[in-house]
Amino acid sequence: MNDTVKAQIRLVARKAKFAFVSSVDAQGFPNTKAMFALKRDGLRVFYFSTNLSARRTQQFLSNPSACIYLCNQSRFMGLMLVGRMEVMRDQDHKAMLWKPRDIMYYRKGVDDPDYCVLKFTAERGNYYHGLQKHDFTVDEL
Amino acid sequence: MNDTVKAQIRLVARKAKFAFVSSVDAQGFPNTKAMFALKRDGLRVFYFSTNLSARRTQQFLSNPSACIYLCNQSRFMGLMLVGRMEVMRDQDHKAMLWKPRDIMYYRKGVDDPDYCVLKFTAERGNYYHGLQKHDFTVDEL
Repeated sequence: MNDTVKAQIRLVARKAKFAFVSSVDAQGFPNTKAMFALKRDGLRVFYFSTNLSARRTQQFLSNPSACIYLCNQSRFMGLMLVGRMEVMRDQDHKAMLWKPRDIMYYRKGVDDPDYCVLKFTAERGNYYHGLQKHDFTVDEL
Repeated sequence: MNDTVKAQIRLVARKAKFAFVSSVDAQGFPNTKAMFALKRDGLRVFYFSTNLSARRTQQFLSNPSACIYLCNQSRFMGLMLVGRMEVMRDQDHKAMLWKPRDIMYYRKGVDDPDYCVLKFTAERGNYYHGLQKHDFTVDEL
């Protein structure tokens, strides 16, 4: 993969406000949902905040297989990352993503037992732009 | 589900230019991709055009479990439909979606053996808006 493509991949990841987060449900069907792309560590780790009781969270506790899709629709750039989703309930992760407005959703604040962090770690992916497709492992990026 | 929610669901389906289409790959991971929402029949059947040789098409031939996600990001309206994806190679389906510009992708035209139609049939779904979630079977819509 050349440096231009790598730069495009970084651009899509940096600009995306939403990620389309997918799990596999108990019946084996994929389930997809838009979530705010709150924080990331390079192109390998992405964080989301959500309810521990949410169906999606429970699916990831049962089956951590996940994918996140980031895109720039107007430029037809699409980045899919496949990997595993961990459900983090420790204070460090919860404090890292906490914003004052989150009190609207979690009445007990950052310590609310229903507040948790989803940590996605990518293993491989593909990038699509201009009829060109590029497969990669995250180590290549 | 009340009529206001049903009207919102129909609005999201009618306005969405893209669908986020998910499959399950051979390793059991969800895979997601944005596709043009070309045509639909109510809220039950959605059609997409693609290459027969495409990885996503081959995944659906092996495992038809699918989901499509339609949304209005600015209004935080998200509609997930779960169901099965069929790969249609008959002349009627291929002609139904064919547009003159498709010759850019399929050199042999509507009869190109690499051109096919993905037909998604929804079974159940959920709709999210304003912190409210609604589960439904397609028969309820």
